[in-house]
Amino acid sequence: MSVKFAKRMEYIKGSAIRELLKLTEQPEIISFAGGLPAPELFPIEEMKQVSLRVLDTDGKAALQYSPTEGYMPLRRMISERMKKIGVEVPPEQILITSGSQQGLDFSGKVFLDEGDTVICESPSYLGALNAFKAYLPRFVEVEMDQDGMRMDALEKALQENPNAKFIYTIPDFQNPTGITMSLERRKKLVELAVKYNVPVVEDNPYGELRFEGEKLPAIKHFDTTGIVIFLGTFSKIFSPGLRIGWVAASPEIVRKYVLVKQGADLQCNSMAQREAAVFMEMYDIEKHIEKIIEVYRRRRDLMIETMKKEFPEGFTFTYPSGGLFTWVEMPEGLDAAEVLKKALEEKVAFVPGGTFYPNGGNENHCRLNYSCMPEDKIVEGITRLGKVFRNL
Amino acid sequence: MSVKFAKRMEYIKGSAIRELLKLTEQPEIISFAGGLPAPELFPIEEMKQVSLRVLDTDGKAALQYSPTEGYMPLRRMISERMKKIGVEVPPEQILITSGSQQGLDFSGKVFLDEGDTVICESPSYLGALNAFKAYLPRFVEVEMDQDGMRMDALEKALQENPNAKFIYTIPDFQNPTGITMSLERRKKLVELAVKYNVPVVEDNPYGELRFEGEKLPAIKHFDTTGIVIFLGTFSKIFSPGLRIGWVAASPEIVRKYVLVKQGADLQCNSMAQREAAVFMEMYDIEKHIEKIIEVYRRRRDLMIETMKKEFPEGFTFTYPSGGLFTWVEMPEGLDAAEVLKKALEEKVAFVPGGTFYPNGGNENHCRLNYSCMPEDKIVEGITRLGKVFRNL
Repeated sequence: MSVKFAKRMEYIKGSAIRELLKLTEQPEIISFAGGLPAPELFPIEEMKQVSLRVLDTDGKAALQYSPTEGYMPLRRMISERMKKIGVEVPPEQILITSGSQQGLDFSGKVFLDEGDTVICESPSYLGALNAFKAYLPRFVEVEMDQDGMRMDALEKALQENPNAKFIYTIPDFQNPTGITMSLERRKKLVELAVKYNVPVVEDNPYGELRFEGEKLPAIKHFDTTGIVIFLGTFSKIFSPGLRIGWVAASPEIVRKYVLVKQGADLQCNSMAQREAAVFMEMYDIEKHIEKIIEVYRRRRDLMIETMKKEFPEGFTFTYPSGGLFTWVEMPEGLDAAEVLKKALEEKVAFVPGGTFYPNGGNENHCRLNYSCMPEDKIVEGITRLGKVFRNL
Repeated sequence: MSVKFAKRMEYIKGSAIRELLKLTEQPEIISFAGGLPAPELFPIEEMKQVSLRVLDTDGKAALQYSPTEGYMPLRRMISERMKKIGVEVPPEQILITSGSQQGLDFSGKVFLDEGDTVICESPSYLGALNAFKAYLPRFVEVEMDQDGMRMDALEKALQENPNAKFIYTIPDFQNPTGITMSLERRKKLVELAVKYNVPVVEDNPYGELRFEGEKLPAIKHFDTTGIVIFLGTFSKIFSPGLRIGWVAASPEIVRKYVLVKQGADLQCNSMAQREAAVFMEMYDIEKHIEKIIEVYRRRRDLMIETMKKEFPEGFTFTYPSGGLFTWVEMPEGLDAAEVLKKALEEKVAFVPGGTFYPNGGNENHCRLNYSCMPEDKIVEGITRLGKVFRNL
């Protein structure tokens, strides 16, 4: 028996690289491949108190169906916290989603017809590209430099692609490069979005994890017309296992996302939404985030220092001032997927960079994660990787 | 500013009826409109013990990212429990989803291109129709009688629609009619699915809530070729707030659903999956289900008795032997949406039946839910509704 699937299933495929990365789950491998938060920082004891409080005070509602839009007290808290990045959005314009990944999927569903264009950074987050692919778009990649997406290249892309449906960007400590978009470019991006009437999907999972330097306002801060859709999440500052993210957008746009969520899964977990809210009520999440920042900063420092020492000439890398990743450029002609095979022989892993370019090419890059490996393993793993690189 | 949305957004709309039903949330209204489980039966005290156990023994994993496919011990338990309805599916062929609603959305995503045909019961579950609509199908409705979907009509639909991508059915205590598909038809359905090579999506949220009579095997029980996709959920037998459902299908098909889930939201809540598993470990879910059945059976009895007494001639209704709903047929020419307005004046509510027919018509039906109203309110509400009916 062989049934007929939708055309999109030809584009949603398991990748050879994903299969390769399954190997990295073996305990003897030092893996810089994932994008996991450090589990030793999860507030487990606090969560026990939080769960008891939720079930004691609001148990029936926590286990019952609840509105698609989300738990209002949580939406209020998110609205309040977004002021820290210069965004004023009332709780009514916030939809709770299953992580920001669901916000990405919904962006595709709300905007994309087959053949429409998505404009994204080059490279861009693999999980977003995969979510969008289900709606059969074309991708136009915009070159980046150390200040993020280049605005001259973006304007050219907008001119050349009148069927562009949105611009997708991760402005802070981008996945995979670790690069942050400059203040000037944020302003300019909104200007261009308005000029060409193309919405911006601002994906910001890492923005609160800044190790040093000045906090930048969100792109949405500069949005006066409702053209920016902001995606946020508690995954990197609290817990990814609870699957609590959000979409903040204009009333017209957020309404579309709500309608899509109704069909997609009705609502997020009623209990987890209350747990996130009660956690912020009972404990100081800002302090918790400071603790995460401290640990990740040390890990970033150690990784960069070791890379400087151990990587041969011709191998360059970004210096992220926050987030979870650094991005390695190897000499041209090298294929990171091949290099990964050699690295696995030395029991060290990373994600080959080619997968982050929706239109292919650029195989000479590697994404390295530093958030979820203890310090000694970072030194040992990067030392091993240096050896692999020197032997190429 | 007015941006351009995808074509599907013209079909995913808020309905006037949904707006009307928002009125039913006022406390003075006796509402038979929802499809909520009785919250007084939720195992709140047990859930406290369950949450503590999960966080104590497996806290890091409960708060961390976890595999898309789901928590293996939970998948094993589901595999084991499915034997009760005659289905042998190994845990590897089970994907955990955010309620069965997500399984419905994924069915659309995996199978439907624009213009493809979905064959469904007439009437059928509104939430499923809305989920499928996002993929722009045509709907072909198959007539039902007291034994469920008519197989002669189904075969005709299959012959006339070679672009049918799947047959959608709720075999047990169907939403909205409360009707159960007979054993013979289940066998025949699988025969026809194989003959025409069209998969069956078997949606079974209510099957475990049988009040009397013999338990029937699932449609999937008769499936020897992997053509039936089974959707299950803990929403009606444990808690809808936790959003834990599942898809059980052939290795080839379940693999497609897993790929779609990766893009859609990565995974279900890691903690909720563990809570469902640990609840079944610590407590006897079968006993819990018996308790639910007892309460719902009494409510069904009371509703039917009162309807017999209070409804005027020309108003007929189904006698469900399980599940949450009964289905009222009013004399032809009456429009349930108009009747609802009059009912709301008497502070009683239901869902007008027209919305359950994807191609319209049949406005002279009402869906009544008996699971979440206490007994005195059922008598009072049905008495009021009888008055409204008599005055039409």
